[in-house]
Amino acid sequence: MKSLVRCRILPWRRHFSTTARRRVTRSIEELPDRVKASYVQRPSNTLLSLHWPSPPRNILITKKKRTPGITESLIEYSTHLSTTYPSINIILDPDSAAEIHEQLSFPVYTWQKPSGNASPQYLPDKTDLVCTLGGDGTILRASSLFAHSATVPPVLSFAMGTIGFLGEWKFKEYKRAFREVYMSGAADTYAKLEFPDHQPSIPLTSPDDPLDKPLSYADIRGKAMGSNRTARILLRNRLKVGVFSPTGQRIDALPAGDTYALNEVIVHRGSSPHLKIIDVFIGGRFLTEGVADGMIISSPTGSTAYSLSSGGSIVHPLVPSLLLTPICPRSLSFRPLVLPAEIPITLRFGDKNRGHEVEVSIDGKRISDGIGPGMEVRVLGEDVKNEAGEWCGGVPSIVRGVDGLEDREDDHWVGGLNALLKFNYPFGDQDGNP
Amino acid sequence: MKSLVRCRILPWRRHFSTTARRRVTRSIEELPDRVKASYVQRPSNTLLSLHWPSPPRNILITKKKRTPGITESLIEYSTHLSTTYPSINIILDPDSAAEIHEQLSFPVYTWQKPSGNASPQYLPDKTDLVCTLGGDGTILRASSLFAHSATVPPVLSFAMGTIGFLGEWKFKEYKRAFREVYMSGAADTYAKLEFPDHQPSIPLTSPDDPLDKPLSYADIRGKAMGSNRTARILLRNRLKVGVFSPTGQRIDALPAGDTYALNEVIVHRGSSPHLKIIDVFIGGRFLTEGVADGMIISSPTGSTAYSLSSGGSIVHPLVPSLLLTPICPRSLSFRPLVLPAEIPITLRFGDKNRGHEVEVSIDGKRISDGIGPGMEVRVLGEDVKNEAGEWCGGVPSIVRGVDGLEDREDDHWVGGLNALLKFNYPFGDQDGNP
Amino acid sequence: MKSLVRCRILPWRRHFSTTARRRVTRSIEELPDRVKASYVQRPSNTLLSLHWPSPPRNILITKKKRTPGITESLIEYSTHLSTTYPSINIILDPDSAAEIHEQLSFPVYTWQKPSGNASPQYLPDKTDLVCTLGGDGTILRASSLFAHSATVPPVLSFAMGTIGFLGEWKFKEYKRAFREVYMSGAADTYAKLEFPDHQPSIPLTSPDDPLDKPLSYADIRGKAMGSNRTARILLRNRLKVGVFSPTGQRIDALPAGDTYALNEVIVHRGSSPHLKIIDVFIGGRFLTEGVADGMIISSPTGSTAYSLSSGGSIVHPLVPSLLLTPICPRSLSFRPLVLPAEIPITLRFGDKNRGHEVEVSIDGKRISDGIGPGMEVRVLGEDVKNEAGEWCGGVPSIVRGVDGLEDREDDHWVGGLNALLKFNYPFGDQDGNP
Amino acid sequence: MKSLVRCRILPWRRHFSTTARRRVTRSIEELPDRVKASYVQRPSNTLLSLHWPSPPRNILITKKKRTPGITESLIEYSTHLSTTYPSINIILDPDSAAEIHEQLSFPVYTWQKPSGNASPQYLPDKTDLVCTLGGDGTILRASSLFAHSATVPPVLSFAMGTIGFLGEWKFKEYKRAFREVYMSGAADTYAKLEFPDHQPSIPLTSPDDPLDKPLSYADIRGKAMGSNRTARILLRNRLKVGVFSPTGQRIDALPAGDTYALNEVIVHRGSSPHLKIIDVFIGGRFLTEGVADGMIISSPTGSTAYSLSSGGSIVHPLVPSLLLTPICPRSLSFRPLVLPAEIPITLRFGDKNRGHEVEVSIDGKRISDGIGPGMEVRVLGEDVKNEAGEWCGGVPSIVRGVDGLEDREDDHWVGGLNALLKFNYPFGDQDGNP
Ligand SMILES: NC(=O)C1=CN([C@@H]2O[C@H](COP(=O)(O)OP(=O)(O)OC[C@H]3O[C@@H](n4cnc5c(N)ncnc54)[C@H](O)[C@@H]3O)[C@@H](O)[C@H]2O)C=CC1
Ligand SMILES: NC(=O)C1=CN([C@@H]2O[C@H](COP(=O)(O)OP(=O)(O)OC[C@H]3O[C@@H](n4cnc5c(N)ncnc54)[C@H](O)[C@@H]3O)[C@@H](O)[C@H]2O)C=CC1
Ligand SMILES: NC(=O)C1=CN([C@@H]2O[C@H](COP(=O)(O)OP(=O)(O)OC[C@H]3O[C@@H](n4cnc5c(N)ncnc54)[C@H](O)[C@@H]3O)[C@@H](O)[C@H]2O)C=CC1
Ligand SMILES: NC(=O)C1=CN([C@@H]2O[C@H](COP(=O)(O)OP(=O)(O)OC[C@H]3O[C@@H](n4cnc5c(N)ncnc54)[C@H](O)[C@@H]3O)[C@@H](O)[C@H]2O)C=CC1
Repeated sequence: MKSLVRCRILPWRRHFSTTARRRVTRSIEELPDRVKASYVQRPSNTLLSLHWPSPPRNILITKKKRTPGITESLIEYSTHLSTTYPSINIILDPDSAAEIHEQLSFPVYTWQKPSGNASPQYLPDKTDLVCTLGGDGTILRASSLFAHSATVPPVLSFAMGTIGFLGEWKFKEYKRAFREVYMSGAADTYAKLEFPDHQPSIPLTSPDDPLDKPLSYADIRGKAMGSNRTARILLRNRLKVGVFSPTGQRIDALPAGDTYALNEVIVHRGSSPHLKIIDVFIGGRFLTEGVADGMIISSPTGSTAYSLSSGGSIVHPLVPSLLLTPICPRSLSFRPLVLPAEIPITLRFGDKNRGHEVEVSIDGKRISDGIGPGMEVRVLGEDVKNEAGEWCGGVPSIVRGVDGLEDREDDHWVGGLNALLKFNYPFGDQDGNP
Repeated sequence: MKSLVRCRILPWRRHFSTTARRRVTRSIEELPDRVKASYVQRPSNTLLSLHWPSPPRNILITKKKRTPGITESLIEYSTHLSTTYPSINIILDPDSAAEIHEQLSFPVYTWQKPSGNASPQYLPDKTDLVCTLGGDGTILRASSLFAHSATVPPVLSFAMGTIGFLGEWKFKEYKRAFREVYMSGAADTYAKLEFPDHQPSIPLTSPDDPLDKPLSYADIRGKAMGSNRTARILLRNRLKVGVFSPTGQRIDALPAGDTYALNEVIVHRGSSPHLKIIDVFIGGRFLTEGVADGMIISSPTGSTAYSLSSGGSIVHPLVPSLLLTPICPRSLSFRPLVLPAEIPITLRFGDKNRGHEVEVSIDGKRISDGIGPGMEVRVLGEDVKNEAGEWCGGVPSIVRGVDGLEDREDDHWVGGLNALLKFNYPFGDQDGNP
Repeated sequence: MKSLVRCRILPWRRHFSTTARRRVTRSIEELPDRVKASYVQRPSNTLLSLHWPSPPRNILITKKKRTPGITESLIEYSTHLSTTYPSINIILDPDSAAEIHEQLSFPVYTWQKPSGNASPQYLPDKTDLVCTLGGDGTILRASSLFAHSATVPPVLSFAMGTIGFLGEWKFKEYKRAFREVYMSGAADTYAKLEFPDHQPSIPLTSPDDPLDKPLSYADIRGKAMGSNRTARILLRNRLKVGVFSPTGQRIDALPAGDTYALNEVIVHRGSSPHLKIIDVFIGGRFLTEGVADGMIISSPTGSTAYSLSSGGSIVHPLVPSLLLTPICPRSLSFRPLVLPAEIPITLRFGDKNRGHEVEVSIDGKRISDGIGPGMEVRVLGEDVKNEAGEWCGGVPSIVRGVDGLEDREDDHWVGGLNALLKFNYPFGDQDGNP
Repeated sequence: MKSLVRCRILPWRRHFSTTARRRVTRSIEELPDRVKASYVQRPSNTLLSLHWPSPPRNILITKKKRTPGITESLIEYSTHLSTTYPSINIILDPDSAAEIHEQLSFPVYTWQKPSGNASPQYLPDKTDLVCTLGGDGTILRASSLFAHSATVPPVLSFAMGTIGFLGEWKFKEYKRAFREVYMSGAADTYAKLEFPDHQPSIPLTSPDDPLDKPLSYADIRGKAMGSNRTARILLRNRLKVGVFSPTGQRIDALPAGDTYALNEVIVHRGSSPHLKIIDVFIGGRFLTEGVADGMIISSPTGSTAYSLSSGGSIVHPLVPSLLLTPICPRSLSFRPLVLPAEIPITLRFGDKNRGHEVEVSIDGKRISDGIGPGMEVRVLGEDVKNEAGEWCGGVPSIVRGVDGLEDREDDHWVGGLNALLKFNYPFGDQDGNP
């Protein structure tokens, strides 16, 4: 395979890189093409197993903005990867790349900021794995880099500060977490690989930690890392969204394609103090005229985000569905709806709103200034399997295992309800009412 | 095929029946075996098409209890079927059979009332089609006759009085409705049938109505009834329920099998004035301890029934899911949940309830008197396709078409939200505040 | 009394006015001082009776903006008042005055638009009665003209188009409605008045209608209009609101006084796509940190407005209370609160919101652009009785009687729940599902 | 005053009691008449101050049933009172009296269990103060002993186990708590009293604790206990309830009077699996036909009980109001209502329920078996001030102070929302997600 061939060559090239070249920012265009992970359904289990055909090389790392201390973590993490996994290339977003590339002893890859709502070009074709340092917002931002791509690389998310609902790894676990992901499903496939003999060019942070040891063929062969353990994937279905201006132009993206949302698309009155009138169509059929602050169409993943705040039910990410949740509806009887993922929903900001505008946001990002009457948002659940029955869509989120419980199905989602959302938090003075 | 053979013989036999034999109540055991309908997914459509391998013969008709006028409708309907479709056998529940068989000029089939929560024996093996005269309660009652059977015959429901949410045919449409169902998918298969020459033995109610004319081969060949029109089926997934006593005995049914619920299973304090403590497990993992009046596990179909009253979201019947909705929980944070149909839920009435009892109901029917601590309810979504990929489970509900709009997908469900549930009913004095 | 004297003189003066003087816009400063209505509690009744010490003279009429046809109604209504009640002076807001004064044969009084959030000067001192032509928004706008005044004149509201929740008179009833209000409680007090003999200077619109006849002493003496019938008043308590900038400056009004709100004061994220953090204090004590789109503090009157849309309970306008209702709170357990009117509530947009802004609105009107961290909103229910035990505060809303049912307590509020809010609208196909 | 005279005599008498007489159970009829506490509004404060005209003598103590350990606490507490406050008489309910009187060295007073829903005779006339050992249920049970009395003695509640919402004292605080209550407002009045020289007849439990020292004149004079500190009272308004059988008979009580409820009155389907139809009237006017599991009319105090579970808002106990909250209504638009305490509400179980029954409960106690169509529940807020303007009604609940913060208004209610109801409990992994 082409990618395997390149794979063997790339680390080789890096050995010849001079210090000067290392501190350099390169374009992601130069990177080898993406190594596509595949996903295997585990028997009697709702999570999938991650399998690499060959080791992942192009690792995108994103971080939360404007957060003290996080830049240090980014440097520590990329340095660890670069040092321990010689064949790995680090991709950073333009801002982070500009901020830290001088402090790194290896090159970083990045892209040019696109204009408007466009996604960075090449990124989907070049990224094998995404790592995020931050909270749910950082994961949403990372996922939105793939908002026009049908396939998203696996996402490994580290919480910086409090744990979020979408990600659940702690930053201090990063070495073990990354190695687990890197090795996932490797037993069969990696066995056929040849690794170059690697001499680390910079000192290891803690030489005694086996996770800091550069990975060699031997390691992979060995049982040390649990070669037939695989990283567990929760495939989070996204929404396929099209936003059309009153004149029928797409305003969410380039004319060509849909925009994918991980949480939701929202139509909202924004700073206008007045109620808005939004027509809702289901499967092309008029359902109702909503008079409200706004309207949410959410994925099951988004059911614990804005939809929850607006009174929506909590929907497990594996229920193939779309949620329609009104925001402050001027009605006593607009109960939130859960609809089949395969029936399209359309929100129309109709002519009754003459003189008014609405705002449309995807995953917490406003995609345009106020839009006038005639605007339409069309939504459908994405396909997560292709015609060959392979899992291809969604955001493959790497789920945290529980130490010593690797074989037991640990439903991170149930855990999150309790630990993070304080679901059905019991009454009483149990915690600290002296 | 065996059933086709019998089919050709049966009407024959009936011609020889004497008046005496006609007024008789027979056991359903005597009936030929069931003709199993099959269901075909229609392209870009969420409803299925109904196909009979051979014409249905054994028709179960149930009616609402204690409702004036409904007995007359039952007589009118069975007489129409018997007269117009000579090969048809009428099955009635024991009470109805006892009530009206004297007034009929043809025999009716019935069964012996089983004891406890058992379902009538043989019924699932003998019934080709179920017709209900009543409301949602009557449909629930009819469906519960198949509560221990993995396969339910198609259900054609006529509203007597106000339209319900589960059924949508009006009684005055019964002739057209039945013929449409009878002929559904007949074009290919019926063509191969031979019909006996039939002389009606009783006068037709309205001889000019083509729908009163006994059906002969010619009719089926002809285009009159729209031979390639098929009845449209909404497959309503049920819940597979097991209720276990504190000592581990099933108390919902015979030891062997599960009970199927169309709407929901409920655990409730009943007449005890005190809160109950119910532990909830999802996929075998402890989720939460609910302190409440009770707990509902509902199918999507049931989302517009009790779960709605308890604050649950409205879930489209085609979203494969289970709803967990608490009834008056003593908590500010027990938001209703929508869970994947394939992950089992368990409700456990634990030992903290010492000295207390709960009541368990399935589809509005209490299945036992108060049950003490240790009781468990285990629920899973039923499989609606068998291993061969054929639709087999669920309650196949025959959906009403709109005159002249047969080809257009008419979403009865959206219609029901608006017309029956007054979903998002608009504010203002539009209707008649003079 | 000074005002009674003036009262007798004023219409006199008007007879000498030339056409030129009639088409003129005058300042409200020129008007005689306000005639203060008093209110009397009716035995075993929750509504009050309106009593004029002398006939009202200065009538403010406001209308909905940008609504076709409404200007004609304004002209018709002011002409009727001016013609039929010779002593009456018409006050219009500056825009309406400019729009229509040329088409009137009598002078209109108006004021200069104040800058910022200030209320028009003199208006509270000069207005005897407010009439609104429009919907709830028009009533809110009219009431906000008195937003810095502890006493609001009685408000008579005519619906143009659909009936609103705050007003309930239909425009076609205006003649009877006005006369009823004009005469309210007149039996005793008016008897002592002397009316000049009045010759109408312009033709009557419909000379046969007794309600078009200029009112003379005889009419008042007579029983024709039901001299001891009184207009019924629902006193709607307002909120006393203070909005303070991060530096402690009032930003809702001049430094001196509070702002009164009829519906509510809202803190909202506005066009910022991010959650805001709002600290809530009750009686000076920290209650909770709300993370939400925003927060509403509402009067009972406002309980059917924005608070309703956000999930608040419906509170009868006569329950002395403040409602705290969160808008889309990121919490499962922020249940709306109903608090005593006399305990102050403070919302603080604290320092955790660094870099963020919120918007504050009173009765649907944004009172400033985004305000940064440190902003505080302080709210208290207004006093509706003064120390002498007289009803003085609130918005005295004139409630519509039911023909022939004047003595029966007609709870307009219960009627509004049913007719307008479609409270507990019954399920089923009763209205027009053929 | 008569009661003062008796007061001086009573402890005298007790000194002559023999052991035999001590272990005796006496009738409450023998007790001196009640010492009525009075309540004074504190400036700028929503709580009241408790003032005894003379020291309280007849102390009713109730305890939670069937709870291990609680009997010991009851013995400890009554012994402390009897020993330390020589003039005090202990009243116990018949069951507790029977259970423990043998273990006490002083007599206990009790009453005869009344039949049906009647309250114990004499109790309201004899009880100066109520103390409860248990949770909210125990307070409800104690309050229901005064369910037919317009005046309830002050209630001092000690939590055994977890703190409840209605009571907030911990049992370990009982000595200080009781002394504070006993002395409340004593500065002026007690100064005039003469106390006999008292010799304790049984050893003190802990002689060094000043709170165990028998109270003498000196103590009261002294500043030790803070003579002008007063116990703080939250006056909890009750509901006046009348339940009428289909034939118009009262079924809640004797024909004469109303029943008072502290939390709520509930109409519920009970063990019937079917929806019930309940007509609601407000101020005598038909409001709506509720189709539901049941209906709650709650006091503000009850807003955190069943009404909360059914979706009602949380209403501060000082908002004079009635809550109408449906239980699982079959409607999308039955929003809970908050109504003025002075407007009566009627629930009617009308004739549409032919063949059905409902259950009626007051404060969690079923007051009769199923009642058929025609039943009516009529509710009104109780008057808390008499014509002289004195506080007389309600349940005067003694609120816990915060050590060293006696002067600061400590809103126990806000505290309860946070500590007990976990109001707006924050998301995130703050507590113990390692
Ligand atoms: N009133 C509300 O609840 C609002 C919610 N949002 C949500 O915020 C998202 C954007 O996130 P940020 O840019 O970080 O905005 P942000 O800074 O306003 O924070 C949003 C919060 O939602 C949480 N969150 C995001 N996705 C979640 C999910 N799928 N499940 C559970 N929690 C989730 C985050 O952890 C964070 O606490 C939007 O997609 C929208 O869902 C945005 C505005 C208002
Ligand atoms: N508070 C509530 O909402 C209660 C609801 N129920 C529901 O009633 C069902 C039993 O029905 P019946 O024996 O007729 O009892 P019933 O006589 O109490 O009537 C139940 C009502 O629910 C409606 N209904 C039933 N299934 C429905 C569905 N799937 N979608 C929308 N509406 C539906 C019926 O039309 C009827 O109006 C139970 O399965 C339960 O869901 C039962 C008790 C209380
Ligand atoms: N999502 C929502 O429900 C929103 C509600 N509002 C409400 O609108 C009010 C301002 O009114 P407009 O300027 O006309 O704005 P608008 O044009 O957005 O209409 C507000 C709607 O609320 C109704 N309304 C106003 N006060 C009411 C009351 N006390 N009870 C029942 N219905 C009431 C009006 O009839 C109108 O239908 C604000 O005070 C706020 O309460 C404002 C924004 C959003
Ligand atoms: N689903 C529910 O929420 C139900 C609630 N109840 C409530 O229980 C009360 C009777 O109490 P128990 O006999 O102890 O029954 P119980 O043993 O069922 O417990 C009721 C719970 O409600 C709490 N509670 C009672 N009054 C309260 C108040 N005013 N504010 C906050 N919490 C309160 C108690 O602490 C206890 O946790 C009834 O008055 C009713 O309000 C009764 C049945 C069901």
